Amino acid sequence: MSSYAAHIATVQARFDAALTATGFDSAFIYAGQPRVAFLDDNPAPFKVNPLFKYWIPVTDSPKSAIFYERGARPVVFLFQPRDFWHAAVKIAPAEWQEHVELVVVDSLEKVTRYLGDKLKATAFLGEHFAEPVASWPVRAHNPDALIDHLHFHRAIKTDWEVENLRVANDRAAKAHLAAKDAFFAGKSELEIHHAYLAAINFRESELPYNSIVGLNEHGAILHYDVYETSAPRESRSFLIDAGATYRGYCADITRTYSREQSGFFAELVEAVDNAQQALLGEIEPGVDYYQLHVSQHLKIAQILSDFEFVRGSAESIYEQGFSSAFFPHGLGHFIGLQVHDVGGFLRNDRGDQFDRDPRHPFLRLLRPVEEGQVFTIEPGLYVVDQLLEAHANAKELNWQRIDELRPYGGVRIEDSIVVGKAGNNENLTRDAFARLEN
Amino acid sequence: MSSYAAHIATVQARFDAALTATGFDSAFIYAGQPRVAFLDDNPAPFKVNPLFKYWIPVTDSPKSAIFYERGARPVVFLFQPRDFWHAAVKIAPAEWQEHVELVVVDSLEKVTRYLGDKLKATAFLGEHFAEPVASWPVRAHNPDALIDHLHFHRAIKTDWEVENLRVANDRAAKAHLAAKDAFFAGKSELEIHHAYLAAINFRESELPYNSIVGLNEHGAILHYDVYETSAPRESRSFLIDAGATYRGYCADITRTYSREQSGFFAELVEAVDNAQQALLGEIEPGVDYYQLHVSQHLKIAQILSDFEFVRGSAESIYEQGFSSAFFPHGLGHFIGLQVHDVGGFLRNDRGDQFDRDPRHPFLRLLRPVEEGQVFTIEPGLYVVDQLLEAHANAKELNWQRIDELRPYGGVRIEDSIVVGKAGNNENLTRDAFARLEN
Ligand SMILES: [Mn+2]
Ligand SMILES: [Mn+2]
Ligand SMILES: [Mn+2]
Ligand SMILES: [Mn+2]
Ligand code: NI
Ligand code: NI
Repeated sequence: MSSYAAHIATVQARFDAALTATGFDSAFIYAGQPRVAFLDDNPAPFKVNPLFKYWIPVTDSPKSAIFYERGARPVVFLFQPRDFWHAAVKIAPAEWQEHVELVVVDSLEKVTRYLGDKLKATAFLGEHFAEPVASWPVRAHNPDALIDHLHFHRAIKTDWEVENLRVANDRAAKAHLAAKDAFFAGKSELEIHHAYLAAINFRESELPYNSIVGLNEHGAILHYDVYETSAPRESRSFLIDAGATYRGYCADITRTYSREQSGFFAELVEAVDNAQQALLGEIEPGVDYYQLHVSQHLKIAQILSDFEFVRGSAESIYEQGFSSAFFPHGLGHFIGLQVHDVGGFLRNDRGDQFDRDPRHPFLRLLRPVEEGQVFTIEPGLYVVDQLLEAHANAKELNWQRIDELRPYGGVRIEDSIVVGKAGNNENLTRDAFARLEN
Repeated sequence: MSSYAAHIATVQARFDAALTATGFDSAFIYAGQPRVAFLDDNPAPFKVNPLFKYWIPVTDSPKSAIFYERGARPVVFLFQPRDFWHAAVKIAPAEWQEHVELVVVDSLEKVTRYLGDKLKATAFLGEHFAEPVASWPVRAHNPDALIDHLHFHRAIKTDWEVENLRVANDRAAKAHLAAKDAFFAGKSELEIHHAYLAAINFRESELPYNSIVGLNEHGAILHYDVYETSAPRESRSFLIDAGATYRGYCADITRTYSREQSGFFAELVEAVDNAQQALLGEIEPGVDYYQLHVSQHLKIAQILSDFEFVRGSAESIYEQGFSSAFFPHGLGHFIGLQVHDVGGFLRNDRGDQFDRDPRHPFLRLLRPVEEGQVFTIEPGLYVVDQLLEAHANAKELNWQRIDELRPYGGVRIEDSIVVGKAGNNENLTRDAFARLEN
């Protein structure tokens, strides 16, 4: 059996279980359609419903849908506009077509006519802001119980999903190397962004998220999402958090570079990189992701101590909350069909949630680690003045050293990890960079 | 008085008239906020409400708003998130700040607190899909009568608006020249798209619309919005329809190039270009835009005859509907704050509409031409097989010649025109190209 055949069988089994548990006979998964801006006719880039691309690797077919009745063969309604404004779409033969009933439609009325009374009994999954879909008399729109059930199990990736994530990382890594070269060539943030895209023949709207391309101080702005169009006089440091996609699966990679190959900031980048790799060794089934987050904090606290940003032991730096001022975000998140993949707070497939810890409010993943999960590990260390303000009078903080770091922004290193049996994890990101170096 | 001062006085007077006519005391113009994808946390690029940027040239401030009470000074609530995820925003001094009451807020509750009971009496203009805005107890959301009144008068541009459109055309023209060079250098569609962006330091999401970058046959696909990542073996022809923005105002330019500088297709491009320029001479206040559309059809019909694509006189080619198969879209549209600017079907500011002619269903502009309007003129001539099918048996069609054209796609030439007194129009687009050539 091919890995896609095994994948769709798994998706089907997961839908069977979810439908049974929540009392539905069928699900109708609508791909969605582009929205237009307010009082305008200009469509925004289309982003397909993740539950649609979970079944088939089709990401560019607005108004398409999948109808799945428990135990039956899934029906794919592939929408092909028949108008002269658009190219006549050629449906390239693909493996997924062997596993579904393919119905090509050029109007949504054909879908409702095909389904007849079954529409009234189905659970609709997707957005339904536009007619005629908005008025369809389905049994339920996006029922929480069904979605929670599906989201819980999505955390465990099939082999086919991991293969796709591997290729997504290959692409992103290739683009990262081009961006790195552009940084060392002294380019502006926008030029680096364009070099990134050009290296992998992507256009901006194909990226899985708004890339962070920050030179110098900008590395400390966690959602830095604008790009300077001219290069700074002195380009000291570079933080890039940028991804790619393959068959709808996402890569999410962060790297930080120091222009100088030795000295203070280069050493800090190396220290954070080492701390991240040390943490990777602690990942194994049964460990709590929350514990990994705390463990990473202690390693960052140790760096804060070693580099004399903060005085005291790693323990005391963590306990007093200083490490949260320098490393304020979560350790990572699930990744897959979505960059921030779903289900990180789910305790079980009945929708019970883990309690969030107010001490680490931005951590998106609280589940125990299991074989087959894929998540990011992305520690950081930055000078965020707004957070340091709260500690303005703390004698433990060494402002002289902090002032030294501020012009470099900060450091983040982010990889995606596939959890294997104890000691057998796969680092999708470092493996991708390693393949490029050969 | 500066041109911006005159502009905002005009906007204010137009709002005064619209509010009076429709029985409102005030309008609350919400800038909008980015949407996130379905079951996701990834925001789409932010597109500001056009009625917001009508007042002030601020396009990148989600959750901001303008409150305007008839006769009073407009209040601008400039939203600045105070969180460590985003850069602390520096509000650069700008002329618009002299004309408004500026209130910087970091929460929408501050807006409602400021307005108190006035919120209940106001007309809300904008999108309101997210809380708390969705639940605000305003008097009306986007009342048609008020919007129609405002849209009708937006057709006449102020001097300041024309200045901005001029700069938008300068930018787009500069990018068009880079794209042209990339075409003649044999680049792929995606490479041309990147060359276009790089030439003006734009990122894709800053473009006013999805550029059409079509080589060869792709020129005939009117909404061609995907880009091939490899160059065709033979790059014969190039149709590019792409814009730029300045202070929220849009350019929309189309050019078509033939690789060979002489011969059949080069001559066709020249003929369409001449037909477009001839049409420009017919634009003057009082003429109906619909008549311009018909006149352009007759000129395209003449080309169809001259090049022997269709047999017969221009009149008969038009009357039998053949020219509509080759030139199926409208002659043009208003342009300004939106690429397809509003009000093209409005007969008056009370919301009465012009009847659309089923013969020209895609024409977006039916109003009489008036001084101060800005619109595009964009004739085209393409081989669209889906439209030619209807005439498969027409003996007037010369399939041999049509087959000769098919590999080139087609031709479109698009400029933006400011209507002046008879004979004194300004061609924003050709002037922009001319400035670059000097
Ligand atoms: Mn991440
Ligand atoms: Mn990231
Ligand atoms: Mn146009
Ligand atoms: Mn255009
Ligand atoms: Ni952000
Ligand atoms: Ni389209």
